[in-house]
Amino acid sequence: MPHIATPPGVHPTREPATQGFVFNHVMLRVADIRASLDFYTRVLGFSLVDERHFEEAKFSLYFLAILDEGETIPEDPAERRDWLARQKSVLELTHNHGSETDGTVYHDGNSEPRGFGHLAIAVPDIHAACARFEELGVPFQKRLTDGRMKSIAFIKDPDGYWVEIIQLTKVA
Amino acid sequence: MPHIATPPGVHPTREPATQGFVFNHVMLRVADIRASLDFYTRVLGFSLVDERHFEEAKFSLYFLAILDEGETIPEDPAERRDWLARQKSVLELTHNHGSETDGTVYHDGNSEPRGFGHLAIAVPDIHAACARFEELGVPFQKRLTDGRMKSIAFIKDPDGYWVEIIQLTKVA
Repeated sequence: MPHIATPPGVHPTREPATQGFVFNHVMLRVADIRASLDFYTRVLGFSLVDERHFEEAKFSLYFLAILDEGETIPEDPAERRDWLARQKSVLELTHNHGSETDGTVYHDGNSEPRGFGHLAIAVPDIHAACARFEELGVPFQKRLTDGRMKSIAFIKDPDGYWVEIIQLTKVA
Repeated sequence: MPHIATPPGVHPTREPATQGFVFNHVMLRVADIRASLDFYTRVLGFSLVDERHFEEAKFSLYFLAILDEGETIPEDPAERRDWLARQKSVLELTHNHGSETDGTVYHDGNSEPRGFGHLAIAVPDIHAACARFEELGVPFQKRLTDGRMKSIAFIKDPDGYWVEIIQLTKVA
């Protein structure tokens, strides 16, 4: 059985037609691409792995991923496209040109109307990571010490999207 | 350089303090968990890899991932928790108990107020995949034949969240 349990709705077997499917990316719109690129690369360690610009339609797409140590991005555009499609946990940021100055405010999904909740980053040492976020002036939605769940924190990206911080290996 | 380019905002180097960070999951709220579990397991091939129930606070979390062939989910809860935190491309669905019957409608992020855009699944054969989605009665936001981008499609999950379908290896 491909599942830990089969509550109502869970299809008991893996459909052969889904073989090879890859959950590749999640897309968020961001108002100030410069601030978002800074946040995801400097604060969270993402690499910019591709960018696509649509001048006529006035938007750009930025693809980010946290690379494994020693992993390299193919330089050839066609190879890079195929490599990118095979990746997991890619973050696509959409920048509608001009949104950084025209007062655009995107909705983080956690006030009405609710929907999207958060991204989550697992880190080797959650106390060190959160101390660094504090030093860097990153806004918190929930510190480790807030509320009942002492093992998780939530920081906010430049648009206010919540980013949950969790511990990779549970410390005893 | 860990990036393909360094447009304004991109931090040129990988900060050592981000070593080992993993972009683990994305969370969406869903109104009818049974319909969502059916969609993500039967239609898209996800496995239910963990579930957590908070009876007092009246919500449940369901963690889904598309497993590699032969990959198994650790049975021991502590081992499973660590394994899950190390994974990439996990989908966390939050079910607020009662939302399936109390008229809750979640916001897909693609109408005002906009924010979240979509998830994306890469598939080995996009034409076969889209033909199967049609057979299964899955609603489309954009068919392959719609609009200018003939190489991508968008289907909708039971809450109306958009799921982009892309081709894994570019067919010449």
